[in-house]
Amino acid sequence: MPRTRVHNLFLSLDGYAAGDRVTADAPIGDAGALFAGFDGRLIHGIGGVDAPLTLDGALTALWGQGIGAEIMGRRKFGPQPGDRPEDGWRGWWGDEPPFGTPVFVMTHEPRPQLDFADGTSFRFVDGTPEEVLRLAFDAADGGDVRLGGGPSTIRQFLRADLVDVMHLVIKPITLGRGVSLWDGLAGVEKRFTVESVASAGGVVHQFWNRRRDA
Amino acid sequence: MPRTRVHNLFLSLDGYAAGDRVTADAPIGDAGALFAGFDGRLIHGIGGVDAPLTLDGALTALWGQGIGAEIMGRRKFGPQPGDRPEDGWRGWWGDEPPFGTPVFVMTHEPRPQLDFADGTSFRFVDGTPEEVLRLAFDAADGGDVRLGGGPSTIRQFLRADLVDVMHLVIKPITLGRGVSLWDGLAGVEKRFTVESVASAGGVVHQFWNRRRDA
Repeated sequence: MPRTRVHNLFLSLDGYAAGDRVTADAPIGDAGALFAGFDGRLIHGIGGVDAPLTLDGALTALWGQGIGAEIMGRRKFGPQPGDRPEDGWRGWWGDEPPFGTPVFVMTHEPRPQLDFADGTSFRFVDGTPEEVLRLAFDAADGGDVRLGGGPSTIRQFLRADLVDVMHLVIKPITLGRGVSLWDGLAGVEKRFTVESVASAGGVVHQFWNRRRDA
Repeated sequence: MPRTRVHNLFLSLDGYAAGDRVTADAPIGDAGALFAGFDGRLIHGIGGVDAPLTLDGALTALWGQGIGAEIMGRRKFGPQPGDRPEDGWRGWWGDEPPFGTPVFVMTHEPRPQLDFADGTSFRFVDGTPEEVLRLAFDAADGGDVRLGGGPSTIRQFLRADLVDVMHLVIKPITLGRGVSLWDGLAGVEKRFTVESVASAGGVVHQFWNRRRDA
């Protein structure tokens, strides 16, 4: 059974997973400390990356394994507020996005699909989490679906109980403001088993698996 | 720079990594407790495996990432003692070995190469660790080389200081006898940095990385 998975979701101790002021110059808003030390080269695996093998790196490398499609929020795709202008924007990642699969961008303002040479295609869809997830599973061709964020998108799927597996990275920082993962989700942990493990890198990794008996 | 890596090497608390009585009926000798709970389906990644995401599973999945060739000892390939008979033996894995790469079997009794549909080829070579490693890197085509064991083979490479990365899994069991990884290697840890992490599965994972300043 294909699953809905979240990977490398960085959280502050006060529960924020993104800044609240995203601009074209600051794609992660004013929450850069969340991502300090993250080695994005490892998302495709530990091979070919000239870095020591660490727990942090090993878990980063789960990102793409068996993934057939991603779902992301509109703000992960681009910083533009309100109506999306016809500005030629093709995402933060330039001509070489790292996805390599269909990517469903949830938006109330659909626009034509964007295709890239590596197999990435951005598909702009308006729908409920259930509806978009169904599209993503169809496109994933038997693979799992990754929820790529941002946190408010993941929160929608958690509220709808559509998340099977979640890898969180708890950083020992406090931000005081930003986009919280947990708004309106009190007690959500009851629907999951949670394994926590501390790394030498100073973070705590958590594996959330939806309870099969719940 | 391609690396020489060891993955999923299970060790008892008294340092044994295999039993000492390997037979055709008991490929891992009398040390089955070492491998209890190991989910071999995960060596190719967490995708497509219907199991909760755990630390143990996530680290199992490092096995093949970026690997272009494996080196194994003769006893990992087959149980036959002494001269290898022309018995049609094609390895423990039947018609579908999991490697998908060239596999160099270290033996003093070379025999013709064996090829499989998935890209696995067993190549029987007589040489020093340095010589066999050179062959493996040539065949790996830029990928890393995995030392697949058994422990006496890995020990040879550790003695020759040819191991870059090593993922050990320390199980809370004592065996009393078997093949020790550590014979003749007192102080070997001085050549590495070691990160240890405990899993909810009850084992300790260690990441050994060769010191670059040593």
